Amino acid sequence: MEKSQKMRLQQQLEFILELDKLKGIERRSYLLDTSRLENSAEHSWHLTVATLVLAEYAESSLDVLRVMKMTLFHDIVEIDAGDTFLYDEQGNAEKAEREQEAAERLFGLLPPDQGKEYRSLWNEFEERTSLEARWARGLDRLLPLMFNYFTQGKTWREHGVNRDQVIRQNSIIADASSPLWRFAKSLIDDAVKRGYLSDGKSGEIR
Amino acid sequence: MEKSQKMRLQQQLEFILELDKLKGIERRSYLLDTSRLENSAEHSWHLTVATLVLAEYAESSLDVLRVMKMTLFHDIVEIDAGDTFLYDEQGNAEKAEREQEAAERLFGLLPPDQGKEYRSLWNEFEERTSLEARWARGLDRLLPLMFNYFTQGKTWREHGVNRDQVIRQNSIIADASSPLWRFAKSLIDDAVKRGYLSDGKSGEIR
Repeated sequence: MEKSQKMRLQQQLEFILELDKLKGIERRSYLLDTSRLENSAEHSWHLTVATLVLAEYAESSLDVLRVMKMTLFHDIVEIDAGDTFLYDEQGNAEKAEREQEAAERLFGLLPPDQGKEYRSLWNEFEERTSLEARWARGLDRLLPLMFNYFTQGKTWREHGVNRDQVIRQNSIIADASSPLWRFAKSLIDDAVKRGYLSDGKSGEIR
Repeated sequence: MEKSQKMRLQQQLEFILELDKLKGIERRSYLLDTSRLENSAEHSWHLTVATLVLAEYAESSLDVLRVMKMTLFHDIVEIDAGDTFLYDEQGNAEKAEREQEAAERLFGLLPPDQGKEYRSLWNEFEERTSLEARWARGLDRLLPLMFNYFTQGKTWREHGVNRDQVIRQNSIIADASSPLWRFAKSLIDDAVKRGYLSDGKSGEIR
């Protein structure tokens, strides 16, 4: 192997090894058996699986490989910036800058051509500027919603989240898929009925 | 949504939820910070990442989407069959049947068209009957080898694994990629030199 090729492989391996740290980033979602909180690496796997298995519900035909490149890397910035809880408004206001710096460092570990490609897909995901990004972002909301529902609203109850907040934060699922948003709303309604989720005052319901 | 469509979505969601159990399957590899053992869900994410980032080292041009469909699901049979340590010869002899039954049940949760597609890719992965399968299987060996090396041979030392066993079990990396097998061998040699791995008697070295 030439010296420049060796260096390229070295950079790629360093990126792969650095990503191991995502396994140590805790989210607010519990596993379905509620034995512990989920980490962002296993969540990224589960999200990638879900975007693949449910692809037929997207609004139009998807480039599934592009979606998967987004979902695999969508949370790696948390290695530096930490996980920010969806319903933490202050945390989310400050999140963007921390995450941009993290993206700079982490994608910067790769050879420039790859770093640029993945970084650009990460931006697309954040800004929801394509069908694939809207799909991936929608599913990234649907999964924790399902986890909440199937754990009797464990995370919602622990953090005092109400129905209006859930509707507001999850309505982007509608941009990913009408049938999945209908499904999500049926879970939310049922969660309120079963007492998993408190019925807050009316918000901007979509 | 029609009744048959509702049932289809129901099956897909059930499959996705069932896969949550993979997060509770422990492997023998440690995280790089050695704080705990890795689980099979986060490993599946890491493997999918690695097969993507390193795709240029495959022997010929890969269908990366097919590879990713293999790596995402390659370990789900462990939900029923458990993880079998690579160097556990007896466990591996009995593994095939348990895993076939698990594949039957798990892929059987899906609508038949999807179940059939993923099951067939899983078989292909197991049997290494395509370029994509050889690539995915090779990387599935390379990652734990790297984890062992970068944790001073923690798993190797705990289980008394020697150099010959490592060479024998990992030589399939050569079918995935010559440059990556050269890299793997350099790690193995260095691991012996540093005392991370004991130098067993000579085996069938490739």
